Amino acid sequence: MNKSYDELLEKCKKIELIEKCSTLLAWDRDCYMPSNAYKYRGEQIEFLSSMAHRELTSPEFEKALQKAEQDTKVTDAYSTEAVNLKHIRRTFDRSKKIPEDLVKRMAVETTAANRKWITARKEGDFSIFAPNLEIVVNLCREQALIFKKDASCYQALVDIYEPEMSIETLNDVFSYLKKELVTLVDKIKNSGSKPDMAFLKNRFDVTGQAELGVKVVKAMGFDFDSGRLDITTHPFCTRPGPMDTRIATRYSEDDLLSALYGSIHEAGHGLYDQGLPREHFGTPAGDFVSMGTHESQSLMWEKVLGKSRGFIEFLLPLAKKLFPEQLGNTDIDSFYRASNHSEPSFIRVEADEVTYNLHIIARFEIEQMLIDGGLDIKDVPEVWNSKYREYLGINPPDDRQGCLQDVHWSFGLFGYFPSYTLGYLYAAQFYNKMQMDLGDVDLIIKNGNFTPVLDWLRKNIHSKGKRYNSTELIKKVTGSDFSAKPFVEYLNKKFGEIYS
Amino acid sequence: MNKSYDELLEKCKKIELIEKCSTLLAWDRDCYMPSNAYKYRGEQIEFLSSMAHRELTSPEFEKALQKAEQDTKVTDAYSTEAVNLKHIRRTFDRSKKIPEDLVKRMAVETTAANRKWITARKEGDFSIFAPNLEIVVNLCREQALIFKKDASCYQALVDIYEPEMSIETLNDVFSYLKKELVTLVDKIKNSGSKPDMAFLKNRFDVTGQAELGVKVVKAMGFDFDSGRLDITTHPFCTRPGPMDTRIATRYSEDDLLSALYGSIHEAGHGLYDQGLPREHFGTPAGDFVSMGTHESQSLMWEKVLGKSRGFIEFLLPLAKKLFPEQLGNTDIDSFYRASNHSEPSFIRVEADEVTYNLHIIARFEIEQMLIDGGLDIKDVPEVWNSKYREYLGINPPDDRQGCLQDVHWSFGLFGYFPSYTLGYLYAAQFYNKMQMDLGDVDLIIKNGNFTPVLDWLRKNIHSKGKRYNSTELIKKVTGSDFSAKPFVEYLNKKFGEIYS
Repeated sequence: MNKSYDELLEKCKKIELIEKCSTLLAWDRDCYMPSNAYKYRGEQIEFLSSMAHRELTSPEFEKALQKAEQDTKVTDAYSTEAVNLKHIRRTFDRSKKIPEDLVKRMAVETTAANRKWITARKEGDFSIFAPNLEIVVNLCREQALIFKKDASCYQALVDIYEPEMSIETLNDVFSYLKKELVTLVDKIKNSGSKPDMAFLKNRFDVTGQAELGVKVVKAMGFDFDSGRLDITTHPFCTRPGPMDTRIATRYSEDDLLSALYGSIHEAGHGLYDQGLPREHFGTPAGDFVSMGTHESQSLMWEKVLGKSRGFIEFLLPLAKKLFPEQLGNTDIDSFYRASNHSEPSFIRVEADEVTYNLHIIARFEIEQMLIDGGLDIKDVPEVWNSKYREYLGINPPDDRQGCLQDVHWSFGLFGYFPSYTLGYLYAAQFYNKMQMDLGDVDLIIKNGNFTPVLDWLRKNIHSKGKRYNSTELIKKVTGSDFSAKPFVEYLNKKFGEIYS
Repeated sequence: MNKSYDELLEKCKKIELIEKCSTLLAWDRDCYMPSNAYKYRGEQIEFLSSMAHRELTSPEFEKALQKAEQDTKVTDAYSTEAVNLKHIRRTFDRSKKIPEDLVKRMAVETTAANRKWITARKEGDFSIFAPNLEIVVNLCREQALIFKKDASCYQALVDIYEPEMSIETLNDVFSYLKKELVTLVDKIKNSGSKPDMAFLKNRFDVTGQAELGVKVVKAMGFDFDSGRLDITTHPFCTRPGPMDTRIATRYSEDDLLSALYGSIHEAGHGLYDQGLPREHFGTPAGDFVSMGTHESQSLMWEKVLGKSRGFIEFLLPLAKKLFPEQLGNTDIDSFYRASNHSEPSFIRVEADEVTYNLHIIARFEIEQMLIDGGLDIKDVPEVWNSKYREYLGINPPDDRQGCLQDVHWSFGLFGYFPSYTLGYLYAAQFYNKMQMDLGDVDLIIKNGNFTPVLDWLRKNIHSKGKRYNSTELIKKVTGSDFSAKPFVEYLNKKFGEIYS
């Protein structure tokens, strides 16, 4: 390669190194930091973010980018060089437009908002969080206004997480999905069939749950020499370095599945991170495609694979060994039906496959109302609750089980939630193709052999880095265009069988 | 105050903030980081250290310092301004002389050396660590040569940790001490008296030990809202922010006292850090006096207070509650005598009060031989073992229990060990005065009331920051000059009673 291209990549890697310092500081904040340390930690993270932003938007960086663009002859649009130059240009242009001051305020305000969210959630009182949420919403709108083209401010925010995905496509897909899901929810309600859930309502000690989580995540292929599993308030996955992927979950003694599937979800993210091409770390070629694609990996493991009959055949014996008293009399079929029981509920991360995307659609609609529609912050709880009544037929009893349940807004991640549903749709498409390539996946994984599955994901998705955008990747891997139909068919087939 | 002085302090606080990012990264490395992440972490820490060094030695900083010195009228040499300007000048002058390249190499090489030390220690094989130690010794000598005046290179290294303490004083004090200690060790050996130690040789589960550690450290006054206690390979205390002090210890199931007194030692450091004037954080006025003074606080708690009869009266009931089977039949006097049993042993951090300083003196002499005397790295184990034979009459069976036991050399901390003995001598002087001020300390603490003791330390030592140097502080607090005699008298009195 040419020298100016190499120099540009060196600059990118340096910026990444600064950001990864910040990533570690944030991980510590969310898992281990003593409570009184939050103010100084906010200043540290803000300092590092500003520095990374300053480096990226410096005249030297711009010059290096221009020089590399001039000196690099791109013949293949999907070559490493082409991909790197395209995405470095996109990131530079976007960052250049955001004033350093806004980056700083965002870092300080989201740190403060996150603290308040933790308190508000603990006390189940939205009003504690509301003033901070208002500040964060305004900052997000301020940011969106900078990038807004003809479309809405919200479109500009979605574009951060899912590049080249339009708000029209989203609105189309989401209203089609909403209709189909509300119908399916109704059918299940009317089927009158309800599995026995009693054995899940036992007491499962945290030590045993943690041991089970580690065993499952290890079996999936998560590398603990290059990663960790910790405890936190809201499950997450983060990557403070090329060989350092950290997932975190939370435990509840009266719920076996919540922490377990939280860990499986985050490990799905973690496996993607661990499978990205390390030789390109710190450059776009070594980075993930989009948040939707990232969520396709977490939801593939948590839902599509994790709630399949094959996975339950692998899981149940492990769980029985740790909790013989609670699970001794449970057979595969009961466990499968119980863990796939579909019933409207309040908490997104514990939702079943049928209702899950209705949680997302509610958030998606509220976000649009907040960013583009002028919804008053103080009305968020009521709007939230009314949507839950309308789509799911349930009314959240308090804000802890309503609009305070997710960490995202406190971090300013408006436009992120659609990624989950996109990820789910991608996952269904990938799973179809995986079945064509590997045969019956249930038969492969039921003895805990996840290697063929992980290899397939590594080869087709993880190893590609950012080479293709999400719709290109789907086309490349499956041969088909992006569509919500495979997901709806998957759901109807699976839940048709379970609920006759 | 004047504007230029304030601007200088802002610059100092910014440098501190960068260094504190690095501190957190290092804490994570030593407590939680997955093993494969070490290389990148080394690069991150090196990057931050270089940046801090570059900021400190920049022409802008020099100009700001000069301007502040010109604009500030100092009338009282012990005023906050005078103390700040004096120490900022010292730090600047010292850092200015160290090339950035040397700082970088030091960061990279000590990270690598630390990894190798961990492996070498695990395998008990010094040769794994030797090549890295050689590199680190050479780097330390390279650094010392820059500051060396008429004195030895080693003097220049000691001066980093204990400013204004001469190698002559150290040699005098240490040979006096060595003579006195070898005599006392002999007397104890010949006394023929040996306490019953059997009850300490039980199995004490780690959960119970950790619970006991937290209880004791909390009782001492350590603030867990501004701090943590974790598990690591080698106990340490670190401070990633003004309200964030972290201590770490290690547990051994067949030893109740090792982890406990490790925690007490580190909590002694932690209490000093938590008591420093926070309003001056990031400037010398908010910093500690010297490493010797820091060790005076850890050893005050671990040895002088922690092994006193009053402390044992507080500790034993707590320990009995957690380990009723193992300690049910033990009375205060047996526990006091057992935990004060003096007998030559291999591991410094587990040594009793009589033999402890002989461990330090051995290291002090070997360090001088390495830095000034041309001792071959490969000969370190044999020299180490021969000194243990000569001073303590014992021969380390392997390097794990010999020259690989301490982390310090892997981090390049040559010249640090004397701080422990200095700290011990300071602690004895402080304790004398504390007894004069408070009366019988045994009577105060025996019910777990450590407030008067901590208040005394806060008022006389912690709150002073860096206002006085260590010998000035001793004079100020006790009215007497620095001397080793109070310590020797303390030892002879205490162990004369125990061993008649």
